[in-house]
Amino acid sequence: MPRDRRTRLHPDDRRAQLIALGVAALADHELSALTIEEFSARAGVSRALFSHYFGSRQGFHLAVLRAATDGMLTATAPSPELAPSARLRDTLRRTVVFVREHGGTFSSLVRGTASGDPDARELVESARVTQTDRVLELVDEVGVTPSRALRLAVRAWIAFVEQMLVDAALGTAQPTEALVDGFVDVLAGLAERTQPAALRAIR
Amino acid sequence: MPRDRRTRLHPDDRRAQLIALGVAALADHELSALTIEEFSARAGVSRALFSHYFGSRQGFHLAVLRAATDGMLTATAPSPELAPSARLRDTLRRTVVFVREHGGTFSSLVRGTASGDPDARELVESARVTQTDRVLELVDEVGVTPSRALRLAVRAWIAFVEQMLVDAALGTAQPTEALVDGFVDVLAGLAERTQPAALRAIR
Repeated sequence: MPRDRRTRLHPDDRRAQLIALGVAALADHELSALTIEEFSARAGVSRALFSHYFGSRQGFHLAVLRAATDGMLTATAPSPELAPSARLRDTLRRTVVFVREHGGTFSSLVRGTASGDPDARELVESARVTQTDRVLELVDEVGVTPSRALRLAVRAWIAFVEQMLVDAALGTAQPTEALVDGFVDVLAGLAERTQPAALRAIR
Repeated sequence: MPRDRRTRLHPDDRRAQLIALGVAALADHELSALTIEEFSARAGVSRALFSHYFGSRQGFHLAVLRAATDGMLTATAPSPELAPSARLRDTLRRTVVFVREHGGTFSSLVRGTASGDPDARELVESARVTQTDRVLELVDEVGVTPSRALRLAVRAWIAFVEQMLVDAALGTAQPTEALVDGFVDVLAGLAERTQPAALRAIR
């Protein structure tokens, strides 16, 4: 990009622009492929400025990963106006839609754990904990305190859903509702097994 | 280790010894913590010899990861003399036992995808495909050709089981049979949903 196409931006906006470029690139690349050289050139900023914003390549990766996970969690945030079981389906439906709209980004996110950076892994893991908590909050809302066994089952269910999203939501034309039905069925089966009272929150 | 404690080994044995040291170290460390310096010192071989065996640090990591996944797949290999559903339970039971006996190694394996090395990730993924195939072979054996939907469900079930193994097999005192019951129930629910004829292979 020629220098004259640089635009003057407030530092915060410039930083956000670099992160946005990084998130967009995640759609086709893995995190490890995002080099500072390429991004500073694309955004028309010097490497020095880039380092000023992000410290290191790792700092940039982490900022991109955080923006991508935040984007997903925001896009799939539960709708408080819905009853628990409807809220669960609605969240799952929006998750399928989000994954289909941001296929490569989601795959990179799931593989984000592959960055070898413990901070990056912690970030992705904490998004999974948030998703686990969202389900357990529904259970709490129907007056049931989630048991430890239920928590473990829901966390493992998140791993199941994640793999289905990568394989079935992205790899097949299965209707969204069919995917959601499948997710809810598995979750209901787990609740039935570990803490039947929680079922009321699920369907 | 003092130099005089070095023993003369055939090159293949020496290589195997280094790999075994690496696998043992996986129990307490992640792959990225395994440095050539430490291992060559512990095994009493020069860095040059180490490089001769493994090429690079990445080559060493890959050899360790391969030995660890092979170990797990061998320890949990299906027993052909058992009927399909009994064979499934037996494999799952031995998987729980293996994970409990090799807790740290298993966690490192699961996080092995975190090495940032595409070859390492492919290795761990191919172990998951082997585990998926083992289940689908049971289905095939009862005369049912697994559908694509069933394959995807089983692959996602492997992700579920893996997470439960890390959290529940390692983190709780849940009896092995209870864990196995849970795994089989979830799998049966998935089969019922995607390809009911496959249920015969599961219970």
